[in-house]
Amino acid sequence: MAAASMVFTDCSSSTTAAARLLPFTRTTPLLLRTTQYAVVFPRRFIHPPRVLSIHSSSSSPSQLSTASIVSQTEKHEKSDTKLEIVNKRLDGKKVAEKIRGEIAEEVSRMKDAIGVVPGLAVILVGDREESATYVSKKKEACEVVGITSFEVHLPEDATEQEVLDSISGFNEDPSVHGILVQLPLTRHMDEQNVLNAVSIEKDVDGFHPLNIGCLAMRGREPFFVPCTPKGCIELLHRYDIPIKGKRAVVIGRSNIVGMPVALLLQREDATVSIVHSRTKNPEELTKQADIVIAAVGQANMVRGSWIKPGAVVIDVGINPVEDKTKRSGFRLVGDVCYKEAKEIASAITPVPGGVGPMTIAMLLTNTLISAKRIHNFQ
Amino acid sequence: MAAASMVFTDCSSSTTAAARLLPFTRTTPLLLRTTQYAVVFPRRFIHPPRVLSIHSSSSSPSQLSTASIVSQTEKHEKSDTKLEIVNKRLDGKKVAEKIRGEIAEEVSRMKDAIGVVPGLAVILVGDREESATYVSKKKEACEVVGITSFEVHLPEDATEQEVLDSISGFNEDPSVHGILVQLPLTRHMDEQNVLNAVSIEKDVDGFHPLNIGCLAMRGREPFFVPCTPKGCIELLHRYDIPIKGKRAVVIGRSNIVGMPVALLLQREDATVSIVHSRTKNPEELTKQADIVIAAVGQANMVRGSWIKPGAVVIDVGINPVEDKTKRSGFRLVGDVCYKEAKEIASAITPVPGGVGPMTIAMLLTNTLISAKRIHNFQ
Repeated sequence: MAAASMVFTDCSSSTTAAARLLPFTRTTPLLLRTTQYAVVFPRRFIHPPRVLSIHSSSSSPSQLSTASIVSQTEKHEKSDTKLEIVNKRLDGKKVAEKIRGEIAEEVSRMKDAIGVVPGLAVILVGDREESATYVSKKKEACEVVGITSFEVHLPEDATEQEVLDSISGFNEDPSVHGILVQLPLTRHMDEQNVLNAVSIEKDVDGFHPLNIGCLAMRGREPFFVPCTPKGCIELLHRYDIPIKGKRAVVIGRSNIVGMPVALLLQREDATVSIVHSRTKNPEELTKQADIVIAAVGQANMVRGSWIKPGAVVIDVGINPVEDKTKRSGFRLVGDVCYKEAKEIASAITPVPGGVGPMTIAMLLTNTLISAKRIHNFQ
Repeated sequence: MAAASMVFTDCSSSTTAAARLLPFTRTTPLLLRTTQYAVVFPRRFIHPPRVLSIHSSSSSPSQLSTASIVSQTEKHEKSDTKLEIVNKRLDGKKVAEKIRGEIAEEVSRMKDAIGVVPGLAVILVGDREESATYVSKKKEACEVVGITSFEVHLPEDATEQEVLDSISGFNEDPSVHGILVQLPLTRHMDEQNVLNAVSIEKDVDGFHPLNIGCLAMRGREPFFVPCTPKGCIELLHRYDIPIKGKRAVVIGRSNIVGMPVALLLQREDATVSIVHSRTKNPEELTKQADIVIAAVGQANMVRGSWIKPGAVVIDVGINPVEDKTKRSGFRLVGDVCYKEAKEIASAITPVPGGVGPMTIAMLLTNTLISAKRIHNFQ
């Protein structure tokens, strides 16, 4: 896929024929937001084998550039190398790379100290090309940092019980510290039932309601913070963007992003408002925000006029819009009209290259956190 | 206790000597907000016996005035008798009475149909006078509607294990459908550990993080909605005050009230902002709200100037302030300066007589809901 073009669609035409959305299903944006890396829609990608297959891979971490070792705790600790905002850009790709370096170091240290390597298990059901791609990307990311990955690939007609049995196996497996079920599942399955079956101590996606409840409650700590929201906050931390006492507006209230990121902002003492489809004047409220996090899945919805001068904008949206100039036929844009917002904001995440790369980095972080917790390793 | 005086302290002096707060502990307001009824601080109240005691009582519902039977579901269904707002007053006492009538009818119906009577167990530890009073009030309320109540009273020096054993007993007891641990516990106990021990199916206070997580997540339903937040929303419903599409500001973010009531408002499609101690301009934000819910435990903090003309104000605060004209020596005021706010708002809850009575009514409702759910009774 060619690098994202710098010619942006006129954002006022985002709902017209000039920027038609490709016919992806409603779940695609959610899928993208869950865990993915520099999204590619590989139309020529080879289909994964249509058989029950179980793969696992162990690897040594690749040689990576030396970076300051920052301990992998859920709260950001100041790095010796403070990241500067260049050209208003919150560079998720660069930050994710740094984080992967830190993780690789920690994985090595843990292996040397106690002979334990973190393990991430991914369960994939069916033949969706995008799902297969995301799983591949996660496995690659694991390999780069030295985390062992396990994959179970069940066919399209697998029963819910087969999925539950796979989960059960990984729950019991001491070499597995994180379990992820690639969504969406096939239609005949009860998604809630399946997700609930993942052991809370290994639920690296962090969507279990018990986790969310602990996130919502003061004095409680979740086992895991959901990856994409965690990535948003991590970006703010890494660029030393203050949160405490700030007005924050979250646009979107999904279980996967909007709601947990609002809880996270509140935990860090922002004054949070959640804007959603029933909000009467979203522009007016958003314009009051020092921090805007947009996660709605609507291309270019947030215009420059919505942004307070100097605000920080985190754009979670990954929306494919038709672009005949691209070999793939489409390009990705966020929920925010980048061209307009960049003029007004003090800092903004690009799409792609902003939140997306952070999501998988947080998945790796969560897997490492899990392994450390299970083995009581500091 | 004499009826609340109509002479209000000048709210600008609420932090001065003229309205000194009585020296209650920090936990008292929380206690009041958890489950209580028309608060009375009975200094001459007889101390409960300082021995391990277990009481249970069954009763037939008292004769109550006929009211429309509204099915006890968690969502309000329109009553045939719509409540009118008189003199801007959201009369919690009156609404609670109506609800108790409805509950009594349902308890009778269930008893006649399947021979099951809902049971509420309350565990009390120690000798705090207020705690003993609240437990008494809950037991009385159960008696009025025909719910069986059980009480375990453990002494001040009881061990955490003894409390856990009591909880365990009630978890297993088929005649118990709701279990409530009266807070605060004694200092040597781990409150989270104790509350976590209550079976999620009987946790009528609804504070278990699993419950809160289900409240936060779209598409999920909690087992129970926490009583005070539930009471706030029920008041809005009963007076047909629209929530969808409205701006709501919740002042306070406690686990017990602020946070869950914010989640409830969002579930009903309000656009919610949470104001708290780190908010820089709480007045400015509150003034944008169509619905204000104040739950901070600071007497008269919210002034008239904070309220948008025509807004609806729900005041959860129950703050004792010194009042030498009272036999008890104090009176109760809310978090909102009633005298000022009433001029501006379209409707407001009085203190006392607003949210307070609703809280125990919701506790009874939750107990009934639990019994119905356990016995699959419609």
